[in-house]
Amino acid sequence: MAEETLAALRSLMASHSPKLDALVVPSEDYHQSEYVSARDRRRGFVSGFTGSAGLALVTANEALLWTDGRYFLQAEQQLSKQWKLMRMGEDPAVDIWMADNLPIEAAIGVDPWCISVDTAQKWERAFSKKQQKLIQTTTNLVDQVWTSRPPPSINPVVVHPLEFAGRSVEDKLKDLREKLVQEKARAIILTTLDEVAWLYNIRGSDVPYNPVAHAYAIVTLDAAFFYVDKKKMSSEVSSYMEENGVQVRDYGVVSSDTALLASDQLASTNSAKETGKTGKAMSDNSVEESRNDLVWVDPGTCCFALYSKLNQDKLFLQSSPLALAKAIKNPVELEGLKNAHIRDGAAVVQYLVWLDKQMQEIYGASGYFVDGEVNKKNQPSTAKLTEVSVSDKLEGFRASKEHFRGLSFPTISSVGPNGAIIHYCPEAETCAELDPNSMYLFDSGAQYLDGTTDITRTVHFGKPTSHEKACYTAVLKGHIGLGNARFPNGTTGHILDVLARLPLWKDGLDYRHGTGHGIGSYLNVHEGPHQISFRPAARNVPLQPSMTVTDEPGYYEDGNFGIRLENVLIVKEAGTKFNFGDRGYLSFEHITWAPYQKKLMDVSLLVPEEIEWLNNYHSRCRDILAPYLNTSEMEWLKKATEPIRA
Amino acid sequence: MAEETLAALRSLMASHSPKLDALVVPSEDYHQSEYVSARDRRRGFVSGFTGSAGLALVTANEALLWTDGRYFLQAEQQLSKQWKLMRMGEDPAVDIWMADNLPIEAAIGVDPWCISVDTAQKWERAFSKKQQKLIQTTTNLVDQVWTSRPPPSINPVVVHPLEFAGRSVEDKLKDLREKLVQEKARAIILTTLDEVAWLYNIRGSDVPYNPVAHAYAIVTLDAAFFYVDKKKMSSEVSSYMEENGVQVRDYGVVSSDTALLASDQLASTNSAKETGKTGKAMSDNSVEESRNDLVWVDPGTCCFALYSKLNQDKLFLQSSPLALAKAIKNPVELEGLKNAHIRDGAAVVQYLVWLDKQMQEIYGASGYFVDGEVNKKNQPSTAKLTEVSVSDKLEGFRASKEHFRGLSFPTISSVGPNGAIIHYCPEAETCAELDPNSMYLFDSGAQYLDGTTDITRTVHFGKPTSHEKACYTAVLKGHIGLGNARFPNGTTGHILDVLARLPLWKDGLDYRHGTGHGIGSYLNVHEGPHQISFRPAARNVPLQPSMTVTDEPGYYEDGNFGIRLENVLIVKEAGTKFNFGDRGYLSFEHITWAPYQKKLMDVSLLVPEEIEWLNNYHSRCRDILAPYLNTSEMEWLKKATEPIRA
Repeated sequence: MAEETLAALRSLMASHSPKLDALVVPSEDYHQSEYVSARDRRRGFVSGFTGSAGLALVTANEALLWTDGRYFLQAEQQLSKQWKLMRMGEDPAVDIWMADNLPIEAAIGVDPWCISVDTAQKWERAFSKKQQKLIQTTTNLVDQVWTSRPPPSINPVVVHPLEFAGRSVEDKLKDLREKLVQEKARAIILTTLDEVAWLYNIRGSDVPYNPVAHAYAIVTLDAAFFYVDKKKMSSEVSSYMEENGVQVRDYGVVSSDTALLASDQLASTNSAKETGKTGKAMSDNSVEESRNDLVWVDPGTCCFALYSKLNQDKLFLQSSPLALAKAIKNPVELEGLKNAHIRDGAAVVQYLVWLDKQMQEIYGASGYFVDGEVNKKNQPSTAKLTEVSVSDKLEGFRASKEHFRGLSFPTISSVGPNGAIIHYCPEAETCAELDPNSMYLFDSGAQYLDGTTDITRTVHFGKPTSHEKACYTAVLKGHIGLGNARFPNGTTGHILDVLARLPLWKDGLDYRHGTGHGIGSYLNVHEGPHQISFRPAARNVPLQPSMTVTDEPGYYEDGNFGIRLENVLIVKEAGTKFNFGDRGYLSFEHITWAPYQKKLMDVSLLVPEEIEWLNNYHSRCRDILAPYLNTSEMEWLKKATEPIRA
Repeated sequence: MAEETLAALRSLMASHSPKLDALVVPSEDYHQSEYVSARDRRRGFVSGFTGSAGLALVTANEALLWTDGRYFLQAEQQLSKQWKLMRMGEDPAVDIWMADNLPIEAAIGVDPWCISVDTAQKWERAFSKKQQKLIQTTTNLVDQVWTSRPPPSINPVVVHPLEFAGRSVEDKLKDLREKLVQEKARAIILTTLDEVAWLYNIRGSDVPYNPVAHAYAIVTLDAAFFYVDKKKMSSEVSSYMEENGVQVRDYGVVSSDTALLASDQLASTNSAKETGKTGKAMSDNSVEESRNDLVWVDPGTCCFALYSKLNQDKLFLQSSPLALAKAIKNPVELEGLKNAHIRDGAAVVQYLVWLDKQMQEIYGASGYFVDGEVNKKNQPSTAKLTEVSVSDKLEGFRASKEHFRGLSFPTISSVGPNGAIIHYCPEAETCAELDPNSMYLFDSGAQYLDGTTDITRTVHFGKPTSHEKACYTAVLKGHIGLGNARFPNGTTGHILDVLARLPLWKDGLDYRHGTGHGIGSYLNVHEGPHQISFRPAARNVPLQPSMTVTDEPGYYEDGNFGIRLENVLIVKEAGTKFNFGDRGYLSFEHITWAPYQKKLMDVSLLVPEEIEWLNNYHSRCRDILAPYLNTSEMEWLKKATEPIRA
């Protein structure tokens, strides 16, 4: 299969005009999405590697797959012999590799809809020293050889009601147009799926786990366009768009409309302009307006194909202003996120109660509370628990909660060594059985109408080793150290990242992933523009009040176990005693509610402040989750949250 | 005075060809030094502001002085009415200000010997949008109006013996030439005073506190040149240079020699080449050599004047390799630094014992150990202690120690509110009297033949307020938190900086300076290329084994008090239990020895690990300093280092 695909691709590369020395197959879809629809998993189809991040490169003789530290183990397992794994951070970056290893004047093909402006330009710079060329293929070569490619989805676009969105399309468009005027721009092209969904207060289901529709938007000073497959638009949603002054146009038209926009000929074709519903604030002052002649394009997310249609002298290349606007949640979104996390926490506790009982009954485990050997006599059953069967149960608990709309990403349910595969995704046929003698890590979340969730806990139902306890405690200390921090306005997540690693570093331990990401409001589970990472971000956006961010340090021992603990935090004013430099100081509010397993803690390694934090958090867990739990679940939770004594 | 100087300068600016709209007067000398000789304090002469960092700008109507947060208070006090203080980090940077505020096509003059390549090019970019021009003045206009300018020094150059330097000139030249060949360079121009001194194992005394000589070096693959005022060279030192294959040429000749170097006509004029003493490894392979045609210039430190004489197509613009080579101390230097810090610590303890006694006798203070009110009855004396008189005493204790060669920077001896002036420099006539009711901060260090020292302690001889104690404890916690950290290879000081701030941030406190700098081996008290700072460094050099770095958080309350605690650390292998990622983990070894005042600690805010660290450090202080103290001093130190109980 892998061999045939490669042969077919190489044949297309040879007959392409110009003949291609290499073909790049990125992970991204036409919107530079992190998660993509089945139909857009071209890199996965070509290489066999199914992780969320990676890039495939096919040359006449070689096939190489780049991915990051989260996926080294998984890629090693999934790649066939034809493929070579290139480890990001260890091996040369893909552009450096191509510049060094492909011949002089090589033609390197890529579908320009699948690559961002920044990436394309970076590669072109790397290629220039050997006169190599980046060739925009006119069709996607992978699609031509992918006979079993899934059909396009026609899932409906739905309106995201104001009671959850918290801010009207009119207000969002007004803010956006103010930003355009500030930057002397007459229009912006929005290609990022969650930004389009957020701006127009709509949701879709074209991409698994992400409630977004495949769509583009162009917003000018007096018009707003929405490019989508019209089969997805009910008459209600069409009316809603019209009411908001948004013109709906076919998905494919974005290409020709961008060309029209370049020559300033993209005109409003419906009555929105005449009704004065849009652009009112701007059209009052024609002198002001005449100065705005730039088109705003986010070079980090806009595809090279659309960018190439624009007038290069009249571009404003900067990150989309919607990334930050979307990241700073409004009060309705904050309230919704908190509520969603309470229901989600209740589902997680119900799951733990259920799993604890099963592990004792089926496997004779000593259980969540007792640090003891497996009781062999109690192991009569033929029923068994697998990573997938238990995660289905977890999904069931979530699905019973109000406003549930599905999972926010594929549940990572991993036993023992699988826990060390950072983004492990169990499959029903091949996944491992639960094991009372192993660590069990589950990282999961859901989409609720009022918010998106993401939580990780690591538990043990038997007798953890002292090494496992020491590692768990180090991860926990880092998790508390970061979550408990206070810091002045202007501080980036990059500065804070070390706080989550310090207790691990003390023992010579570390983890090969970032520490935190923003999370959407019934949108993508990963969102920027901020992050908490050891890598300085391209956009060094400071943490700001009302942003969400995860706190998820971990430790992974290949072949043995993985540990990760993750809560979602909201950035808020800290209310410190002093305010040196008048900068204002910030802190985090935890909104995730589920206990940490006391059995896995080496309490002697905790300092009083950490114990106090844990006891306080556990006590709040009890109070907050109580309305959602039955008597036996509450009894379990009470025991799980009994105060720790130093 | 200030007015006359400005008038004279403006007159020269007007008669300059072309007429200058503005004149920049940087702090730096012809070597981009941080500390400069009295003769080179042009910015201080022009503006009246005597701090170590700053830049003056004179236009037809305005006079502006930029400086950083350490100096805001001092600059406010020293600047006359004609001058406006520009606060770095708050006000626009100087190049932005000039571009915005000076007219189109403005001519902006600067002495090209006093400005680095990087800075000149950055300014030129900023100026280009309004067609403004950076004009290289042919003479220094400040020197023309500075009638009382001190004469040039003719202090002798001395050899720094191998028993202290630890590595021969021959070996250092060999390493440097290997770097040149690696980078395809045929020569390097060295303009930084401490790099020249380090490379040739010589020292001088042209700059106060820095044992360096005003000199340049040019090293080619087969010759090495030393540009210095020959009046400073004894026959012994001249012979030493000749033995090492180093040709001594007059200081001013560097300019014409650089021009010769540009056209590859800078030839060896003595017998060094023939003797084969230099360049042996390289001249064996003429094929290799022929490929090397670049001249290496460090754009961050080389002056614009020399750079302008070179062939722009044949430059290798990168940080000097000597910065890192010098920063990673050899075993002899490490041993010397440790010994120097022990003697220095003994001097500090002797000073504290003396000061404690004086404060009780003269001012009726309760003293170093007792947290009590001033006893008025015991205050009969007319003798008094001032910031300067006590710092002279401290210098006396240091001067009595082996290998003492002077102070490493002007002692900061500051009482109460003066402690909040971060780089306060007391003057005998105006300085404050010691006060048993105020905090006293002293930051000081010395040059010893075997190492350079730098230590800060903050003490109180009366009854500190609970606020002062809380602040002291927060600073101490940060100091310990950073000093106790372990971290993987590859970690920069920028990543670790937050560890020193975290306990302060918790209360909404902070400090406006970096946390640590490298320190020389009988060289400059501040050296790079690494640092510990909230600002990402231009060169992001990770901390590496055998580097020195200070750990000096602080807290400053304008008008009230300042607190700073500073030790010198050596980076070393941590010997962690595990070694995740095979990166190797590092930690710090404290080499500064002097007690922290227990009376100023709020022990309830310390965690067990911090108390353990303090008790262990104090116990080592006792053991290590014992050989240098008399009986009564040891008694005091024993009391000062008694274990803290939680």
